[in-house]
Amino acid sequence: MHENMGYKSIGIIHSEHTRAEDTPIQPVFAEQCKGRAEIFPEYADGLKDIEGFSHIYLIYHMHRAGSARLTVKPFLQDVERGLFATRAPCRPNPIGISIVELVGREGNVLNLKGVDVLDGTPLLDIKPYIARFDRITTAHDGWQEEVDDKTAGRKGKRGYGKGGTCRT
Amino acid sequence: MHENMGYKSIGIIHSEHTRAEDTPIQPVFAEQCKGRAEIFPEYADGLKDIEGFSHIYLIYHMHRAGSARLTVKPFLQDVERGLFATRAPCRPNPIGISIVELVGREGNVLNLKGVDVLDGTPLLDIKPYIARFDRITTAHDGWQEEVDDKTAGRKGKRGYGKGGTCRT
Repeated sequence: MHENMGYKSIGIIHSEHTRAEDTPIQPVFAEQCKGRAEIFPEYADGLKDIEGFSHIYLIYHMHRAGSARLTVKPFLQDVERGLFATRAPCRPNPIGISIVELVGREGNVLNLKGVDVLDGTPLLDIKPYIARFDRITTAHDGWQEEVDDKTAGRKGKRGYGKGGTCRT
Repeated sequence: MHENMGYKSIGIIHSEHTRAEDTPIQPVFAEQCKGRAEIFPEYADGLKDIEGFSHIYLIYHMHRAGSARLTVKPFLQDVERGLFATRAPCRPNPIGISIVELVGREGNVLNLKGVDVLDGTPLLDIKPYIARFDRITTAHDGWQEEVDDKTAGRKGKRGYGKGGTCRT
């Protein structure tokens, strides 16, 4: 039953975010934040055809996440919530997922927009965003629906734009 | 630079899929396939508030995936593609992502619909699907746009419905 889940980094995410407190919490709050995914040369052949996709999932190891907690106050709301009902980083397995915009590719480097990931984060996987699979039009969003867009935009950016490190 | 990425299972995914060749490749092709995510009791408190979300990401370890390959012929098209431009399971880190419908919760068990995951798959994480973050309306889908919906529906179900194991 217990499988070997010793994953390895397939590359590194480069961004302008060096401080967690200045890093937007999701790509939607980081639209102008550029970054790069550098894939190690031994995996570069796997990037063939990726240029056709406008958006990709970055799946990464949140190397600076704190210890796991089972309830957290999410960034967007001052109410304690179950961890798995949030996207907070302090998870039993600190796997992060971001849907970023793929601007272009130069060899083993992907140029990206909407990067909400700390500089130097180890990359685990890349998958194409495919509307047929991933664009759910019927979703109900639980406590997130209690947060209006304006409040989400303000809180979701965190310190970005207030002397944060992301240049636009 | 090299981080400890030794992840542990937080639970098990139960489904009616026991043979990979009869398992739909994505939830969209498995609409009627029910299943359960059993979260180990020590993590159950993290499920608080999840009932408000209609869809969740299951993030799991594809324990029966073959060795990694950098180019593959995807299930939906008979053309060799770069691995990272596909959702094929034979990845350097065999992490799977499925957006499934959350039907209800009984304690530490989540009842699900749209399950395209093999029975017994180790669960790594659960995140809520949040339209504000995850519903990308402007996506271009590369080679996937060459596959019409009818062909995708037929190929994406694999053996399901042709004597496969998923009861509807």
